[in-house]
Amino acid sequence: MKQDKQEIRPRFRDLGYTVGDLEIGKLNSITDVPGVKVGHCTIIEGNSRLIPGKGPVRTGVTVILPHEKNVYREKVRAGYFVLNGYGKTTGLVQVQELGCIESYIGLTNTLSIPAVTDALIDFHIEENPDVGISTSSINVVVGECNDGFLNDMQGRHVKKEHVFHAIENASRNVEEGCVGAGTGMSLFGYKGGIGTASRVVIEKTAEYVVGVLVLTNFGHRKDLTILGKKLHKEGMKQVTKTQHHGSVMVIIATDAPLNNRQLTRLAKRAPLGLARTGSFASWDSGDIIITFSTTNRIRHDENAATINMSIINESTKLFSSFLKAVVEATEEAVLNSLCKATSMTGRDDNYVEAISIEKIKELLES
Amino acid sequence: MKQDKQEIRPRFRDLGYTVGDLEIGKLNSITDVPGVKVGHCTIIEGNSRLIPGKGPVRTGVTVILPHEKNVYREKVRAGYFVLNGYGKTTGLVQVQELGCIESYIGLTNTLSIPAVTDALIDFHIEENPDVGISTSSINVVVGECNDGFLNDMQGRHVKKEHVFHAIENASRNVEEGCVGAGTGMSLFGYKGGIGTASRVVIEKTAEYVVGVLVLTNFGHRKDLTILGKKLHKEGMKQVTKTQHHGSVMVIIATDAPLNNRQLTRLAKRAPLGLARTGSFASWDSGDIIITFSTTNRIRHDENAATINMSIINESTKLFSSFLKAVVEATEEAVLNSLCKATSMTGRDDNYVEAISIEKIKELLES
Amino acid sequence: MKQDKQEIRPRFRDLGYTVGDLEIGKLNSITDVPGVKVGHCTIIEGNSRLIPGKGPVRTGVTVILPHEKNVYREKVRAGYFVLNGYGKTTGLVQVQELGCIESYIGLTNTLSIPAVTDALIDFHIEENPDVGISTSSINVVVGECNDGFLNDMQGRHVKKEHVFHAIENASRNVEEGCVGAGTGMSLFGYKGGIGTASRVVIEKTAEYVVGVLVLTNFGHRKDLTILGKKLHKEGMKQVTKTQHHGSVMVIIATDAPLNNRQLTRLAKRAPLGLARTGSFASWDSGDIIITFSTTNRIRHDENAATINMSIINESTKLFSSFLKAVVEATEEAVLNSLCKATSMTGRDDNYVEAISIEKIKELLES
Amino acid sequence: MKQDKQEIRPRFRDLGYTVGDLEIGKLNSITDVPGVKVGHCTIIEGNSRLIPGKGPVRTGVTVILPHEKNVYREKVRAGYFVLNGYGKTTGLVQVQELGCIESYIGLTNTLSIPAVTDALIDFHIEENPDVGISTSSINVVVGECNDGFLNDMQGRHVKKEHVFHAIENASRNVEEGCVGAGTGMSLFGYKGGIGTASRVVIEKTAEYVVGVLVLTNFGHRKDLTILGKKLHKEGMKQVTKTQHHGSVMVIIATDAPLNNRQLTRLAKRAPLGLARTGSFASWDSGDIIITFSTTNRIRHDENAATINMSIINESTKLFSSFLKAVVEATEEAVLNSLCKATSMTGRDDNYVEAISIEKIKELLES
Repeated sequence: MKQDKQEIRPRFRDLGYTVGDLEIGKLNSITDVPGVKVGHCTIIEGNSRLIPGKGPVRTGVTVILPHEKNVYREKVRAGYFVLNGYGKTTGLVQVQELGCIESYIGLTNTLSIPAVTDALIDFHIEENPDVGISTSSINVVVGECNDGFLNDMQGRHVKKEHVFHAIENASRNVEEGCVGAGTGMSLFGYKGGIGTASRVVIEKTAEYVVGVLVLTNFGHRKDLTILGKKLHKEGMKQVTKTQHHGSVMVIIATDAPLNNRQLTRLAKRAPLGLARTGSFASWDSGDIIITFSTTNRIRHDENAATINMSIINESTKLFSSFLKAVVEATEEAVLNSLCKATSMTGRDDNYVEAISIEKIKELLES
Repeated sequence: MKQDKQEIRPRFRDLGYTVGDLEIGKLNSITDVPGVKVGHCTIIEGNSRLIPGKGPVRTGVTVILPHEKNVYREKVRAGYFVLNGYGKTTGLVQVQELGCIESYIGLTNTLSIPAVTDALIDFHIEENPDVGISTSSINVVVGECNDGFLNDMQGRHVKKEHVFHAIENASRNVEEGCVGAGTGMSLFGYKGGIGTASRVVIEKTAEYVVGVLVLTNFGHRKDLTILGKKLHKEGMKQVTKTQHHGSVMVIIATDAPLNNRQLTRLAKRAPLGLARTGSFASWDSGDIIITFSTTNRIRHDENAATINMSIINESTKLFSSFLKAVVEATEEAVLNSLCKATSMTGRDDNYVEAISIEKIKELLES
Repeated sequence: MKQDKQEIRPRFRDLGYTVGDLEIGKLNSITDVPGVKVGHCTIIEGNSRLIPGKGPVRTGVTVILPHEKNVYREKVRAGYFVLNGYGKTTGLVQVQELGCIESYIGLTNTLSIPAVTDALIDFHIEENPDVGISTSSINVVVGECNDGFLNDMQGRHVKKEHVFHAIENASRNVEEGCVGAGTGMSLFGYKGGIGTASRVVIEKTAEYVVGVLVLTNFGHRKDLTILGKKLHKEGMKQVTKTQHHGSVMVIIATDAPLNNRQLTRLAKRAPLGLARTGSFASWDSGDIIITFSTTNRIRHDENAATINMSIINESTKLFSSFLKAVVEATEEAVLNSLCKATSMTGRDDNYVEAISIEKIKELLES
Repeated sequence: MKQDKQEIRPRFRDLGYTVGDLEIGKLNSITDVPGVKVGHCTIIEGNSRLIPGKGPVRTGVTVILPHEKNVYREKVRAGYFVLNGYGKTTGLVQVQELGCIESYIGLTNTLSIPAVTDALIDFHIEENPDVGISTSSINVVVGECNDGFLNDMQGRHVKKEHVFHAIENASRNVEEGCVGAGTGMSLFGYKGGIGTASRVVIEKTAEYVVGVLVLTNFGHRKDLTILGKKLHKEGMKQVTKTQHHGSVMVIIATDAPLNNRQLTRLAKRAPLGLARTGSFASWDSGDIIITFSTTNRIRHDENAATINMSIINESTKLFSSFLKAVVEATEEAVLNSLCKATSMTGRDDNYVEAISIEKIKELLES
């Protein structure tokens, strides 16, 4: 079985509107950060009623590659922020302590966290056969949203081969909408999924990129806000069954030389971008933001007593620009996930409709 | 010397617009929470050029009384969240550990934190002469923003008598705009200060209020957003000198029986309301949110081994309503501080203009 | 192949010494907390040189059952503290947000976290077939230490059946030493593993228990301290190869009615007990403490707007007794893991010797 | 009136014992860190019964100067950890956000925090007249313990001149015991106060110092532990009235190039040192640890977009040595405060006896 409609849908910016003030990167994508790649594996199978553990399947996995080299050997500085912690993201204890990420970052459905974690352990051990033998073990970071409204989540249908497939297919061209981890997600009562966007921050002597990728699965129709305008006026009835457990994962990448504390400051701005789309971060959401910088990597085998690094002077307007970039790119990435997602029927004929692009246009022209 | 214009200005809602979906309380004020009172002391003196330590003075103090009894003897459960911690709020270490506040909450300019803290110690010792002798000492909570663009902040002109005056004048009728701690503050390049708003959350058998009071001192004109619309289009020049150090204090009160962890969850939603007015929480802001509940007070002299309490079941839509209430009331409180504030000239003839109510109307009608 | 020596070894208290001042529970075990059970599955296979992924196996899994009912349906209030976060414990994001645990708590080797998490998801879905379909998903808490010095950790030899076996064998009689997750662990250069202890806190009208279970895998010989005395004087040579990656998991249970914030305060005292055994929490340790209370459970299906509960009045000596109980029970649990563990040969003939009970006696009598 | 006994008392190490394994610095003091100075002002007045607000006075202020230059202009990187937050330390919000300290660090009694903060604002404004006018405001860090058992704390007898006196008298020779902020403090039922110690960490090409200064005011006699031995056996009666509100401030300085996250890791080890003296961190203690590095200072007026720095590679044994150094120096600093303090009579003839040096010797020789 395939997705209900396979039409080509526009990104938000294709509608002729901008989000915020800053310039976008070439691809308006997290992959504008040099070296960053994203791969998806979308798993859609079965058409019948839910047989728990058997299907139907509307899920997948998305993998973010922080750079093109061995990430365990060249860890990236990282930070995170939890807006609401009704979520199961794994690996964050070590990110906080050491301020870095040493694995690819996985995204999937809630109950497939263990399978994706295990598969990423497999992948990194293949690259680093000394893990857990003559060197330390490995910390893997995987986040999730709950796609159980459309997907047989109990079935844990994401397997090792899907994760490896996502890695192999990783590229700078990021598919958006109902792909990878985003396959079965819902956003403001419409179909959601994967979205991405970027902003460029220009400094006299350098140009930095802030890229955002979101996995969207939150909100009620009456809260949806596009460029400050509500699509549904008060009292509008919910026209489809929607999930109760909203969540969003936000992955922020940059090539700016920022340390763990500074990256944590960036992470705290993503909620401001979510707010502009209408989120109030409901009690049962896992709203988790992870930030990393591709610069000043930490060499696993470094033996020197001290490490030289150059970091952004945060007492400048430049640093505030990074903060603003996060807000704007997060807002636009959410809108991209909304625009690009297509309608989908899942378990027990649960149906989530894609938003009408025409209605968005009407709203913005009003 | 007095403020430049003493005209009566409307609150935002007087313009005929609402903010969000939830109902407001009777006064649309933090004082809709039964027992909560707010008092201001506004200090405006001098007209000449800045003589550091001597004036001119454009500052004040605002005091929030959590309830009408002895707060040291009946502490209120509390939580907080720091969106950006370039701020000097005092007393938060103990709030985090014990989950309660045992003093009135003060707001003032940055350098007057010690004076206001000391005066509140005086006040509470008067009520509780055993403090530090036969019982424990006292933890006082005071927050701040930087009013140095208009005010001789070095002069630390807030004195004990001003704090006591604010307490004595505390009432349920909260003045907004350039009063108390808000006297010298700026908001999106316009005059800011004190604002308040509230939301009512209705449950079958009970009705709860969430009230918000803000001290606003942040933002650039080009970011100002009112009900989703930007007042200044891109490229608009800054027409007045503005402060570099933006900040905001948000005080959230409720009569809902929430504990420290739950109140912390509420505090984390205030940034979503700030975001809707255009904030991106610049690097040099002290954006600090303090939440308290007037229910389930902690008796200082309680000797029982266990304490009985009833708390909100947070796995309900009711709890999400509190979160939404915070977002909406924060947004509206900011707009109230903007609408009510009047133009002011301060040190070295620095001038901050009040926003034009007409221009807001035009914007919203467009 | 079996463990090198299968002699019966004493617990620390059997040597005739006490640790601290407070009374112990009947079993001097975490299972003195009514309803708490602990189950192990020990996996020892193979004798040959390490073939990564193939063995030999010196590992296992330990499961702590917070109470005898359905834990997903009756969640336990919980808190945690990370002394040093070079660790991969999963599930803590949600523990912090919601202040509760809704699964059995698993302990295993670092790379088997995904397998144990997945198996616990299986177990809890069997009990709760609505998980992820008509109700929310499930958050599973699993902690780890690195047993790679003795065990083929890459092989991830802990399987679903081992986890289920540990659950089925859970009882109030807690085996200590080289069992379950403790099978391949080392402590101060000697063999370590599982240890437990408890303290009773008596209040006029009630009696509470604080129980601790540790998984020990840290320290250097020259730091080992027993009741304040160092076993090895300065300059003592290390006589066996030891692991570089020390860690410890501490699980604290109590029947005292404590909430998330209070339980977090208890968790912060476990390091004080570790310190008394000689730990300085090295840079590469995952020293993670998880606390839960069996009282005031949170009913998953609770629909009431408010929940009544009775909690400990923490401004009493009673609460300080809980803190002291944690320190003492943690210290004794570590010593029990040391005394009970037996010598073991593992991968590549790596050998970790059990501590000599005679030498401990000599030390304490000196 | 003067202190009861003015005898010269030894430091702990003068008794012929060492604490831990690492080498001490030249002075065995926080001032072994180049540039660090400490100044005290001790205020002892009055002999009569307590007249709240009037005396008698047994208090003071201690100031730690992170380096010899203008600290506001050259901020030091810093971190902190709160073991138990029943304390009023001010300034920590900004330390967490920006990872630095920009003032001298003050220590005093609980209710004198505002006066000492205000005086430090005065001092730093004198050095930096642009504060709050043409540059940002200033964040001052001041910690406290409760000396109300001996001192008229309500009187807030620490004045601006005392703070300036402490600064003027700051030197590398740190007085210990009943001086400065330590004047009226108690430790394990004996007299406590100020103590200091240091450890040297040697790396091939460099030598670093970790220095600790403590303000001790915690513990019960029966918990006092010296080099692993309890001075009072179980059941020993309390022979003097003691304070209920125990607390300790720990200031850690180093010249090692550590950033905010690394310094926070160091701060978390001080409790391990406290534990070895017998602390279990009672519910009502303010146990707060502040760490700073004198290297990689942050220039207030830095305009460059990026900052070059060299930081310690924490994945080395070197970093673990810093952690061990904190544990050892903290333990020894506490013992120094105990040994150096002299008996004192205070308000209402409350008396706190100095520990008998002879009894310590007997204990250690037993």
